[in-house]
Amino acid sequence: MITLKEIAEKCSVSIATVSNILNGKSNVSEATRLRILEVIRESDYKPNYMARGLRATKTRTVGILIDDLTEFSSPNIVDGIMEELEAKNYRGIIENLRFYSKYGIEWRKNEKYEKDVASAIDYFLSIRVDGIIYVSGHSRKINCIPNSIKELSFPFVIAYAFSEDNVYPGIVFDDSKAAECIGEHLIQRNHKKIALIMGKKNNIHTENRLKGFKKALENSNLPINENLLYYGDWTFDSGYTSCKNLLSSSEEFSAIFCFNDLMAAGAYKALEEAHKKVGKDIDVIGFDNREFAAFLSPPLTTMEIPLTEIGTKASQVVLNQIEGNSYESLYEIPCKFCQRESVGKLNNGINAIVQ
Amino acid sequence: MITLKEIAEKCSVSIATVSNILNGKSNVSEATRLRILEVIRESDYKPNYMARGLRATKTRTVGILIDDLTEFSSPNIVDGIMEELEAKNYRGIIENLRFYSKYGIEWRKNEKYEKDVASAIDYFLSIRVDGIIYVSGHSRKINCIPNSIKELSFPFVIAYAFSEDNVYPGIVFDDSKAAECIGEHLIQRNHKKIALIMGKKNNIHTENRLKGFKKALENSNLPINENLLYYGDWTFDSGYTSCKNLLSSSEEFSAIFCFNDLMAAGAYKALEEAHKKVGKDIDVIGFDNREFAAFLSPPLTTMEIPLTEIGTKASQVVLNQIEGNSYESLYEIPCKFCQRESVGKLNNGINAIVQ
Repeated sequence: MITLKEIAEKCSVSIATVSNILNGKSNVSEATRLRILEVIRESDYKPNYMARGLRATKTRTVGILIDDLTEFSSPNIVDGIMEELEAKNYRGIIENLRFYSKYGIEWRKNEKYEKDVASAIDYFLSIRVDGIIYVSGHSRKINCIPNSIKELSFPFVIAYAFSEDNVYPGIVFDDSKAAECIGEHLIQRNHKKIALIMGKKNNIHTENRLKGFKKALENSNLPINENLLYYGDWTFDSGYTSCKNLLSSSEEFSAIFCFNDLMAAGAYKALEEAHKKVGKDIDVIGFDNREFAAFLSPPLTTMEIPLTEIGTKASQVVLNQIEGNSYESLYEIPCKFCQRESVGKLNNGINAIVQ
Repeated sequence: MITLKEIAEKCSVSIATVSNILNGKSNVSEATRLRILEVIRESDYKPNYMARGLRATKTRTVGILIDDLTEFSSPNIVDGIMEELEAKNYRGIIENLRFYSKYGIEWRKNEKYEKDVASAIDYFLSIRVDGIIYVSGHSRKINCIPNSIKELSFPFVIAYAFSEDNVYPGIVFDDSKAAECIGEHLIQRNHKKIALIMGKKNNIHTENRLKGFKKALENSNLPINENLLYYGDWTFDSGYTSCKNLLSSSEEFSAIFCFNDLMAAGAYKALEEAHKKVGKDIDVIGFDNREFAAFLSPPLTTMEIPLTEIGTKASQVVLNQIEGNSYESLYEIPCKFCQRESVGKLNNGINAIVQ
């Protein structure tokens, strides 16, 4: 389907001009207006999109666009989105971009993905959704949203990520604050030599968690030991390998902060093979609070990402946009610390909100 | 939105008559035809639905209706569905019914759920999908599909479940065969006293797995010991409690077959507390091959449900319906046995297909 941008290029006018004409407002000569309308008519530009542009009627439907449904975070974010939509008598309809499944872990290097986003948004506009929520698979700066959305001031919210200059409101959680809280928790328990099994380099989650952890050390005037920093790639195997390397190094450490639960599970395996008892010989903390974290032996202390709450907030914001109410440009939802038995002898359960 | 059935009732004619009129074919008097068209006009019956009834144009879009996206099986089934749709240049669009989230574990006793299904299907028809795939959250007889779908011979496939008399083609896996394979695996390893931690009573998965396991015993002329059969409710906690009860009973046993991986993880915890080593003192087998099964200590031997394959097949069948090709009324996809270390000393990895 042809986009607003392509029509504008074809007519040598700005996107705003095309958008204005679709909205029944025109700041150009009648001849130009007719020429543009002719191009629109000749193209396969969806008439429903035009109806949508005119905002003639509301369908009480919100489109939910997902990087990849098989990412662990997606189903719960969608559940939070839909719970709120249904409470307000709106319908949620989902498009799954399947970026990880289709283009692999490095999908953002694939030139096709931006076209996929544009096509999915065009489809949503053609079935006349009132607004769109983009559910990211991980935190990043989203810059693949077609300009037409911005030009039309179409209700659009990003969940689990954010956009350049916060053009579209974003709903995120505070990685840095959560990692600082984990660092402080370990320091309070007298750990001074803490190893990190981090995510990939140049990843926002990795960078922010490292920053937060360093802040916790600084707050207690503890030095950082660069030899205790290991980069993983978020997988079980990389947690296992990093922990084995750590154990075979000459560095002393009493605790490991893994930047996700999968790598913590890998670290458990390496520690078990080295006959080190988690929560006794070595303390371990994860991140995410995946379902399996509670089934590990011992149950893993971790940081819960507020997935459902991110979804709920995304719906509240898109409904504010649709209904013409005010909203912020960025929302940070606090994580929840889950104390279990992988750090000393502590109580079970979620018992602290990271504010 | 008014349904075909309601229009038929209002006009005191059959659904087929209304359907025929919508399809441009009429077997009634002109007066009746005009009266019915008048009722349709006066109702909020969607014109797009009529267009769909006429099959004037294809949108190359398939609607995917899901019991609940947060069920572990849903994302991978949807991924399989969409992989196949995209390969054939079709778009998949998803509605999430949220039955477990909205109405709890006993949602089928809630009178509202059938209306939700009808409303979601009406929405799909209003945006003119070419066919619908219903993704069930568990195996069951689906009988909540509005008659209009049947009357219109609208392309409709059920994934992970089936319909009465296979009116709509169903894609399932063979629970009974898979459980028989597990039973035989344990018997081959010389286990004669095998305990079962099963799912809920009166559940198709529970019944079929029990049937398959009993068949394996019969094949080897081994008796079943009813005292070794425990009903759980598919949760970690019920696996833990059942295993504790089993351990404190006077019955001897050397292996436990848990009807899902979550209950197997609970059994691991109970065995660890009783200082029994899994894979040495007691062998344990699960079912599902959830992601965490490989992270348990020792990694859990289990049966993988072919979720992606079920999705792929569902798409193939709905596309056959849409394109007028032939198809079967029921497809059974084989499970994959995953040997790990919770049963004696065996090789890792998936190494047998249950045919």
